[in-house]
Amino acid sequence: MQIELSNRMNNIDPKPLKDMFVYGIDPDIISFACGNPDSALFPNAQLSEIAARVLLEMPVQSLQYGTTNGYAPFINTVIKRLNEVEKITCAPNELLITSGAQQGMELIAKILINEGDTVIVDEPTFIGAMNAFRSYGAKLIGIPLRDDGMDLDILEQKLRENPKTKLIYSIPTASNPMGSTMSEEKRKEFYSIIKKYRVFVLEDNPYGELYFDGIHRPTLKSFDTENLILYCGSFSKILSPGLRIGYVCAQKEIIDALATAKQTADLQTAVLPQLMANEYLKTYDINAHIEKLRNCYKEKCYLMLDCIKTYFPETIYYTKPVGGLFLWCDLMSDIDTNQLINKCVEQKIAYVPGYAFMTDINKPYSTLRLNYSAVSKEKIPEGLEKLGKILKNELRN
Amino acid sequence: MQIELSNRMNNIDPKPLKDMFVYGIDPDIISFACGNPDSALFPNAQLSEIAARVLLEMPVQSLQYGTTNGYAPFINTVIKRLNEVEKITCAPNELLITSGAQQGMELIAKILINEGDTVIVDEPTFIGAMNAFRSYGAKLIGIPLRDDGMDLDILEQKLRENPKTKLIYSIPTASNPMGSTMSEEKRKEFYSIIKKYRVFVLEDNPYGELYFDGIHRPTLKSFDTENLILYCGSFSKILSPGLRIGYVCAQKEIIDALATAKQTADLQTAVLPQLMANEYLKTYDINAHIEKLRNCYKEKCYLMLDCIKTYFPETIYYTKPVGGLFLWCDLMSDIDTNQLINKCVEQKIAYVPGYAFMTDINKPYSTLRLNYSAVSKEKIPEGLEKLGKILKNELRN
Repeated sequence: MQIELSNRMNNIDPKPLKDMFVYGIDPDIISFACGNPDSALFPNAQLSEIAARVLLEMPVQSLQYGTTNGYAPFINTVIKRLNEVEKITCAPNELLITSGAQQGMELIAKILINEGDTVIVDEPTFIGAMNAFRSYGAKLIGIPLRDDGMDLDILEQKLRENPKTKLIYSIPTASNPMGSTMSEEKRKEFYSIIKKYRVFVLEDNPYGELYFDGIHRPTLKSFDTENLILYCGSFSKILSPGLRIGYVCAQKEIIDALATAKQTADLQTAVLPQLMANEYLKTYDINAHIEKLRNCYKEKCYLMLDCIKTYFPETIYYTKPVGGLFLWCDLMSDIDTNQLINKCVEQKIAYVPGYAFMTDINKPYSTLRLNYSAVSKEKIPEGLEKLGKILKNELRN
Repeated sequence: MQIELSNRMNNIDPKPLKDMFVYGIDPDIISFACGNPDSALFPNAQLSEIAARVLLEMPVQSLQYGTTNGYAPFINTVIKRLNEVEKITCAPNELLITSGAQQGMELIAKILINEGDTVIVDEPTFIGAMNAFRSYGAKLIGIPLRDDGMDLDILEQKLRENPKTKLIYSIPTASNPMGSTMSEEKRKEFYSIIKKYRVFVLEDNPYGELYFDGIHRPTLKSFDTENLILYCGSFSKILSPGLRIGYVCAQKEIIDALATAKQTADLQTAVLPQLMANEYLKTYDINAHIEKLRNCYKEKCYLMLDCIKTYFPETIYYTKPVGGLFLWCDLMSDIDTNQLINKCVEQKIAYVPGYAFMTDINKPYSTLRLNYSAVSKEKIPEGLEKLGKILKNELRN
């Protein structure tokens, strides 16, 4: 029988994410394409002890249906930590536990976006967020990202041209894919612009604690006096992505609507992972754990920057992240990295072609994303030497 | 700032599900309102042993990002069991692991339904499914449920009147809320109708193994030669709802579209619960566990039927389930059970008013749903005696 999919499915192209995944599973490929945290650092022994304990001692809480908004003690723990670490003030009815931050974005899209609504995004930006908006028919407008975040002059221009903009999506700290970070000063300027234009911002902050220059920049949410920020947080990069725990912090009316949408989406987030994260935060020292992650990613990032300097053509532009998992290169030529990837994969090297992170994925781009968190310190030089050779060869032609 | 929600959010009323939850948390209320399995029967000691083991021995598989379609060994285990228990033949690329069956329904709605599309449903039926369809703008048409399932004459009539019907939703075994079950013969007749009209059916089967009359009726999917059935299964009622593990079995093209939607929804289902369910199925005897559940629910259901006979007014109609968690009463009068519930809650008794399960929730209904799985054998007689008194008193007026 002929399958007639809904119109909204035409708005999402599954190819970019599928490609990333495929490059990631071939063990012969040195893949800079994925977005995984370093699995060697998972606190699995502690989580094993916790899981065994909560399942024995709290069978009802860990296995029965829970509540849509999240496991209440965990909500309180997250709120306390948000306050301590990010200076965010949040009441229990202003937080919703989600199945990863991805779900937070999808639900925000579902409750806010009508077909044809304008959503402004960093460009390049996280494909999962763009697909969430696209899947509800949003018209995306990209604002060029600079080394220090979104270009605010262009943002203001676009807001003037699109006074009905429904939402702005941004990753102010250690952005995916660029690895760019907005300064504190620029964040305040950003906030004053959105205050002026009265527009909601989805602040996506999965890498907020993974800075490695010692500077913890304030979240937009921490100075959100006007309830304009819908803040998405995640335990994927600081604890475990497989547990699928994220959260949205926003005013009660937004959280209520999100909870209604979540009830329809999956009733609630799996409770055992929430209990595990809750016990981990209460029993163990997550700050010490995060410090370990920072040191590891700092070392890998700096190694990668050294290798780029050594092996890549001099004419290439690349970002110098102060946190997160990624850096970004621009070949500054007319080479289409989405064509070049085939040649690289043949030589057992993978990156993510820049097109995947653009509002228009059908044009050619000379950019690419490199991940350092999931690649070993041995493979980084080996892989980048190979990639550098390919790039030099291409740029010579 | 004024919050302008998307139009689709106007289609869902959060009240019914919220009410159910509220009645469930007051410990002084004897609540027949929830849909929880009996938590005394969770195999928590075995799951504790398993969780501790997989986290120690398989840290990457249990904590790293996995794949959108599900943990591959678990997919194979589910397929093997579907084949053994339900005689369903399914290839690995025809199955998607979801965050509970609820997510399966929401994703099916997302990939198939355009604003205004017709979806035919059992009536009364599961509110979570209706809300999934409503949230994408579906027009719902209810087909009256009889003791043995959907009225097929009316179904055929509605299909004739609505030749563009996008989907039929049905729970053929131990339906929620009625507790009605379709005979094997009627299932075949149902299938021949949908074959004639070429329409997809979402077969929702969370209670399929929880029959207690010894008769395992075949799933529609087991004789689906035409790829018309999208089958949603769940481990919520036979293992644990808090783990949030369900699945969709359908042809590859549907699964591919669902996977694209799932990637946008939450990337993937939490992996630890998948590993736990997989190990449980491989290490322990789930059939023996299910037999225990059947015996427990049979005993509670029969106790409830006895109490209804003893305490309820004789004029009341009620179903006599052969499986599942629920039975259904009709007061056969003009009493609106959605008004009556307030009086009952004052007297510390709760049920779910029938309106919650109807396509039009704004009319008065004289029906109500009673759950027996989550209420203790001591509380069932106590609660139904009280409820019977209230009903007798009301019907006398």
